[in-house]
Amino acid sequence: MKRSERLVDMTKYLLERPHTLISLPFFADRYNAAKSSISEDLAILKRTLANNQNGILETVAGAAGGVRYIPFLGHDHAKEYLLDLASRIEDPSRILAGGFVYLSDILGNPQDLRRIGELLATKYAYSNIDAVMTVETKGIALAQSVARYLNVPFVTARKRSKVTEGATVSVNYISSSLDRVSKMELPTRALKKNSNVLIVDDFMKGGGTLTGMEELVKEFDCSIAGICVLCEADFDKSKLVDNYISLIKISKIDTTKKIILAQPGNFLSVTDFNRF
Amino acid sequence: MKRSERLVDMTKYLLERPHTLISLPFFADRYNAAKSSISEDLAILKRTLANNQNGILETVAGAAGGVRYIPFLGHDHAKEYLLDLASRIEDPSRILAGGFVYLSDILGNPQDLRRIGELLATKYAYSNIDAVMTVETKGIALAQSVARYLNVPFVTARKRSKVTEGATVSVNYISSSLDRVSKMELPTRALKKNSNVLIVDDFMKGGGTLTGMEELVKEFDCSIAGICVLCEADFDKSKLVDNYISLIKISKIDTTKKIILAQPGNFLSVTDFNRF
Repeated sequence: MKRSERLVDMTKYLLERPHTLISLPFFADRYNAAKSSISEDLAILKRTLANNQNGILETVAGAAGGVRYIPFLGHDHAKEYLLDLASRIEDPSRILAGGFVYLSDILGNPQDLRRIGELLATKYAYSNIDAVMTVETKGIALAQSVARYLNVPFVTARKRSKVTEGATVSVNYISSSLDRVSKMELPTRALKKNSNVLIVDDFMKGGGTLTGMEELVKEFDCSIAGICVLCEADFDKSKLVDNYISLIKISKIDTTKKIILAQPGNFLSVTDFNRF
Repeated sequence: MKRSERLVDMTKYLLERPHTLISLPFFADRYNAAKSSISEDLAILKRTLANNQNGILETVAGAAGGVRYIPFLGHDHAKEYLLDLASRIEDPSRILAGGFVYLSDILGNPQDLRRIGELLATKYAYSNIDAVMTVETKGIALAQSVARYLNVPFVTARKRSKVTEGATVSVNYISSSLDRVSKMELPTRALKKNSNVLIVDDFMKGGGTLTGMEELVKEFDCSIAGICVLCEADFDKSKLVDNYISLIKISKIDTTKKIILAQPGNFLSVTDFNRF
């Protein structure tokens, strides 16, 4: 196979398997090419990704070595996307009764989910995440997107018992927007002990739901790698969680004047983009 | 930029934007290259994808023309994956009380979701799908995956009213596994009139939930492009829907003897793979 064809196939192969170590002999075999040619191919790939600030090709030396594709977005791409997203969220037709915001279109848009997944996968690219956790329903799209780019499984806590999940572990938590004790649960087989878990959700008001997920992670003898939300309601009363990351911060919702103000959250300032 | 670098970037760019027409001048501009060079690049890309039976690069001629990347998996890839998936589903530890099957690990695994999304996007690659619909909770992963490869939005019907979705349209349906009348609903703004909708779900026993989604699609004055499920329980009583497509058919679940039998569903026989 010619270099040009190898490069197309290699790019596709690596993009489909993020965070997975692929050995040089594997590629040499696949293309019936010398290892030195493969190395040159990979150098081209690495350089192209780095020039675009859109992906890292990591080289692991030694006998057990190879290359690993790390989805990683540069600061400028991240900022540009988040400014655009914030301005779209400022659309007053999103305002719902009770100070909620309609986000289902964004959470069902493949191109938004791709960008959001890449952003969160950038932040946690080097955090050795084993699994992503969310709670039904709207956090699922987010969990799936970041899980795709970290290439780890995601698990979904349920708010109601289901017969299609088998034995479960459940916790109680205070749902701060409803001011009542709620329950969430996860199948016992969903998470392995000692996993490093990234918690994600779509919207944070008081953070009650997030404390439920924190509890659940602890019940499974796992550690919390981080807590991320797509939007935080910054105008809401004090939060029940700290150390969370938000992509978008909503500073004001005026339901009578139909005003909603949004801006990028703390994501940009807490992420280390200097990895290229 | 050199051809080798262009090919890497072009592959990534197209893979990230399936079913989207990209004009030749766009690429010529992006790489500061002649249109004839870009045409040669695209020919290499097209040939490489076709040789691997893993993607189609469609050329659209004329002034408004360009290229479009269509995720498309060849028959042999599809068969190989479905046989492997069926054998993994035959694991007796998946059997739950009531003849249900534990599938959450598959529905939370990025590599499975990639394959499943590619398969369904292959079947409907030329069906002009406008949106994918599912009902919470476990169908969401499926809907998101196929929506990603068709590059259309997906919408999630809810079984309970939520204050975070605004006005909704609701329908009643007979949940065949529970033998009772249930309700599902979708925000009025979720689907545009006259959309061509692909319905997906994770598991079909009697098909009651699918009839609910059919109703919902009609209430929105939309058309049904197709109905797909990951698994159908073939041993169950007669189905309430026909013309559905299943990736996996479960022919037997014996909860006492701990036996579960699975095989590829009708997907392979109803899909036209001759498009390369």
